[in-house]
Amino acid sequence: MSPKITTELLKQLRQVMKSPKYVQEPVQAYIVPSGDAHQSEYIAPCDCRRAFISGFDGSAGTAIVTEQHAAMWTDGRYFLQAAHQMDNNWTLMKMGLKDTPTQEDWLVSVLPEGSKVGVDPFIIPADQWKRMSKALRSAGHDLVPVKENLIDTIWTDCPQRPCKPLITLDLSYTGVSWRDKIVALRSKMAERKVLWFVVTALDEVAWLFNLRGSDVEYNPVFFAYAVIGMNTIRLFIDGDRMMDPAVREHLQLDSTLEPEFKIQVMPYGSIVSELQAVGAGLSPKEKVWLSDKASYALTEAIPKAYRYLTPYTPICIAKAVKNASETEGMRRAHIKDAVALCELFNWLEKEVVPKGTVTEIIAADKAEEFRSQQKDFVELSFATISSTGPNGAIIHYKPVPETNRTLSVNEIYLLDSGAQYKDGTTDVTRTMHFGTPSAYEKECFTYVLKGHIAVSAAIFPNGTKGHLLDSFARSALWDCGLDYLHGTGHGVGSFLNVHEGPCGISYKTFADEPLEAGMIVSDEPGYYEDGSFGVRIENVVLVIPAETKYNFKNRGSLTFEPLTLVPIQRKMIDVNLLTQKECNWVNDYHQKCREVIGAELERQGRHEALRWLIRETEPVIRVQ
Amino acid sequence: MSPKITTELLKQLRQVMKSPKYVQEPVQAYIVPSGDAHQSEYIAPCDCRRAFISGFDGSAGTAIVTEQHAAMWTDGRYFLQAAHQMDNNWTLMKMGLKDTPTQEDWLVSVLPEGSKVGVDPFIIPADQWKRMSKALRSAGHDLVPVKENLIDTIWTDCPQRPCKPLITLDLSYTGVSWRDKIVALRSKMAERKVLWFVVTALDEVAWLFNLRGSDVEYNPVFFAYAVIGMNTIRLFIDGDRMMDPAVREHLQLDSTLEPEFKIQVMPYGSIVSELQAVGAGLSPKEKVWLSDKASYALTEAIPKAYRYLTPYTPICIAKAVKNASETEGMRRAHIKDAVALCELFNWLEKEVVPKGTVTEIIAADKAEEFRSQQKDFVELSFATISSTGPNGAIIHYKPVPETNRTLSVNEIYLLDSGAQYKDGTTDVTRTMHFGTPSAYEKECFTYVLKGHIAVSAAIFPNGTKGHLLDSFARSALWDCGLDYLHGTGHGVGSFLNVHEGPCGISYKTFADEPLEAGMIVSDEPGYYEDGSFGVRIENVVLVIPAETKYNFKNRGSLTFEPLTLVPIQRKMIDVNLLTQKECNWVNDYHQKCREVIGAELERQGRHEALRWLIRETEPVIRVQ
Repeated sequence: MSPKITTELLKQLRQVMKSPKYVQEPVQAYIVPSGDAHQSEYIAPCDCRRAFISGFDGSAGTAIVTEQHAAMWTDGRYFLQAAHQMDNNWTLMKMGLKDTPTQEDWLVSVLPEGSKVGVDPFIIPADQWKRMSKALRSAGHDLVPVKENLIDTIWTDCPQRPCKPLITLDLSYTGVSWRDKIVALRSKMAERKVLWFVVTALDEVAWLFNLRGSDVEYNPVFFAYAVIGMNTIRLFIDGDRMMDPAVREHLQLDSTLEPEFKIQVMPYGSIVSELQAVGAGLSPKEKVWLSDKASYALTEAIPKAYRYLTPYTPICIAKAVKNASETEGMRRAHIKDAVALCELFNWLEKEVVPKGTVTEIIAADKAEEFRSQQKDFVELSFATISSTGPNGAIIHYKPVPETNRTLSVNEIYLLDSGAQYKDGTTDVTRTMHFGTPSAYEKECFTYVLKGHIAVSAAIFPNGTKGHLLDSFARSALWDCGLDYLHGTGHGVGSFLNVHEGPCGISYKTFADEPLEAGMIVSDEPGYYEDGSFGVRIENVVLVIPAETKYNFKNRGSLTFEPLTLVPIQRKMIDVNLLTQKECNWVNDYHQKCREVIGAELERQGRHEALRWLIRETEPVIRVQ
Repeated sequence: MSPKITTELLKQLRQVMKSPKYVQEPVQAYIVPSGDAHQSEYIAPCDCRRAFISGFDGSAGTAIVTEQHAAMWTDGRYFLQAAHQMDNNWTLMKMGLKDTPTQEDWLVSVLPEGSKVGVDPFIIPADQWKRMSKALRSAGHDLVPVKENLIDTIWTDCPQRPCKPLITLDLSYTGVSWRDKIVALRSKMAERKVLWFVVTALDEVAWLFNLRGSDVEYNPVFFAYAVIGMNTIRLFIDGDRMMDPAVREHLQLDSTLEPEFKIQVMPYGSIVSELQAVGAGLSPKEKVWLSDKASYALTEAIPKAYRYLTPYTPICIAKAVKNASETEGMRRAHIKDAVALCELFNWLEKEVVPKGTVTEIIAADKAEEFRSQQKDFVELSFATISSTGPNGAIIHYKPVPETNRTLSVNEIYLLDSGAQYKDGTTDVTRTMHFGTPSAYEKECFTYVLKGHIAVSAAIFPNGTKGHLLDSFARSALWDCGLDYLHGTGHGVGSFLNVHEGPCGISYKTFADEPLEAGMIVSDEPGYYEDGSFGVRIENVVLVIPAETKYNFKNRGSLTFEPLTLVPIQRKMIDVNLLTQKECNWVNDYHQKCREVIGAELERQGRHEALRWLIRETEPVIRVQ
């Protein structure tokens, strides 16, 4: 990996920072955040502006360019990668280290008095704007919105914004029509006494209209906004996608409808002017509901007195609670996904052990091949983490030719992968050894397994937030002085983003919404030994009601049901570190894998994989 | 309990709310918060203004009086009590219920346009002022500071502000001189680049100067503020307390000292004008450090640009980490406290079982009597919760003649009590049965015990916040559908407040500071069955380093050592619900009680209590 040479680009950027063509007054600094106008986690190539200007293409990072300096803030996952990808023009700001200044503090330390700091108001979330603007103002500087994105002005070969065809999802997948979703949304709006709701997150637009797209890799979403009034529906979307007869039919664009369900289709770029028109028409006490993560540009379009901002939108919360059709779809998707993985693991055992010719990349490709044979497969749900030996300790590893290792009988192999099927989204991690694991490797694996089981089998009251379960996953590791430096679980969409809010299982947050039956999260504790190996055991689990002996205050209890049904390698388990209860959990889980996935392998005529499954799901037995 | 008749008082208050003698402009509403000028949890009688105006004397509640209405906000602990203590002039606002408006929303709904809402700026914390002021302003009203407290103007027989003699603590108790504490504080100030630090919390003033007082019941503190500069120390305190030769000597008031350690003693009431003078002398970038919970009056005395506000002060954090002298003192205090409780429980068994003449109040008094026989006993550390049968289910119960029940062989007895000794503060809860507990009572007790052990024996990495341990205490209860509606633990002062920040073990917070070796917290899970019984098992525990097999990232691990050494009633334990590990914990704990407390009982010649202790610390054995 050689760094990107950015001298010329930075020169050009510094020119446009002073050019009256683009800025009303020269800006002394320009901020290039990671995101897109929808604050997406995964972004389209045309939105990779920070990677373009710096060379650093990790998933998180903020660049700031001044007349003299260029600096990049990123977190511990990316210190090495950023250092490799950026040339000497750039200073790496290692977030989380004690001596690293915040962006605001750094700006204050390097800017001449009374500076202007520019940023694209569509890319910066309103809450970040507020914080940074306040800090700069108190030091005598100004944060200013620069309408034209300055990176785009110098990015001559910038790829076009994707505008791919849409997929319509019928009731058998979604369980609820978009009309009923609008009705439910309007009733939430009435409860909070707001007149308008602005949908800014791409997965929220997709979910609301029961549409999917492929504008962004891994996330089946499309570029659009929506503005829902009590009597109007406006969808802001570009291209000829609304010409597709299936889409027109799905959205009933040509039907005679009650006016409150008539969708007005508008150009994507007209969102701000339309919002300004909405804002101008409001009278006191009439409010517009927006996520507090919406862009500054959209938030600012509504006068402050009329804004109603919440961290989680009613769509985000409704979307998280899967209905029966979505749950059944997720079950089907996980069964197909398990079939693909049984095939893969059986194939790996045959290839790795005697031949030693399988690399991380080959294994990842093979996993995709098996998945793509399954019905309704659409694409992967994220870049496959296929890692062996020391690469397994790099939590967000993705194999590239420079790092690609060959799987062997001497090293642990960790595969974290998933797919988008039309009926659901999967995300599963298994860690395995093709030879004989060391006692230490088994010990670490077993602690991780104990943590996985502690979460999966946990019973907790209705209304409990997921972050309260995080320590359960760590307790066995903590007892021996071990730990892992990531959260334990994230929300998973239903044929949508593999990471979604508002729930999860992580010590890092406090603002997650309570878990409720129908929510789907991952359970993925791990252990990582730098330079040596990584262990992670991940299932996607469904929140379900739990039967308990008593029922305090009539609150009811919840627990989890694993949707992922892929054997956990028995060879890696030190059975005598398990309690009898944990042992039973493993055996019950494997029994279910054998029954459910076995039947499907049989149905698909995959007999060799079936034999592998049966062998891998034999009971484990404690020696007392 | 008959309600307080407040018609005349409210009439008087509404008059002064309009009187030019007290307010510049009439106020249409007046807020009466719970606290004092130091945001203390326990307050002096002269500060019980909310109780005076309403009759409701629970520990938490805010009264708001308008021309037409009088409303009281309090939480679930006090719904019943407030309803009993207040007359029909008052509307009870039940906090935590869905339909209860916030104070701001309620004010906006009842106030005429453009109203003024008054509050004593010394009683309202700055963060609350900010929130309320913003909400009122956005609805066209104004929050205004009313200098003279309007309750005080109508409270003709208001008790005097206490001004009791001070106790000086020498190095054998404190481990660190006040001079060294000032040096350490100044180094923290230099780190943060602040020039001044304002000490507003009473326990922080007491800790900093190694002084104690008795101005407030249960908390050994005295009314004072302090302002520490890099070269000056100002102590704001009233009365002739500074005439006491021991205090003068302790503070070296008459010695020739380096100027930066010379304490200037000033009147308590001059704090605001002195702070204003400090503020006026500042130049840009010179900051004054305050708690963000300091009163609005003090915060406002410093111009906004010069304020440096943090949720926890450096004194709060330093005070929480006990040094070797303090830890040893806490150990001694807990040994004496255990002696008193062994005597009490032995006495109760003799009195309750055959005679049935012991009431909750008699038991509480007897507990105090035994404690007061111990060396360096000062007072109780909080009002004793002595509760039997259904009273045990009232979490903050305090026996009064109207509720006083007689202990019997048929009901569970719960005693939550503690004391201030010159060498430490105690807080312990034991739940016991003097007859034969039912299987269900034993079952619930055992789940609570499992939770207590899960926290006490937990091993966790350095840097872990206490709130991450809260779920460990609940897991066994959750498994059966049970729970308790309070946090699991609070910080405990060293001959100081029995509740102190910045650490604790509670799902309710996220902003606690990480636990570190030397911190002291309580571990007190419980279970409460309304109308029937309550169970709580509470030890005070010290955070200590833990030995672990591995040491991930060299972070080190922590665990707890119980300082409380009082037997947990074996009769209440359903041993077969314990794991072998839990069983061993109980037996090891009892073994330590027997050794340490047994030796002290022997030394004090308390042979009957010693026999009781030996019987109560026999090992429990699981029947497999």
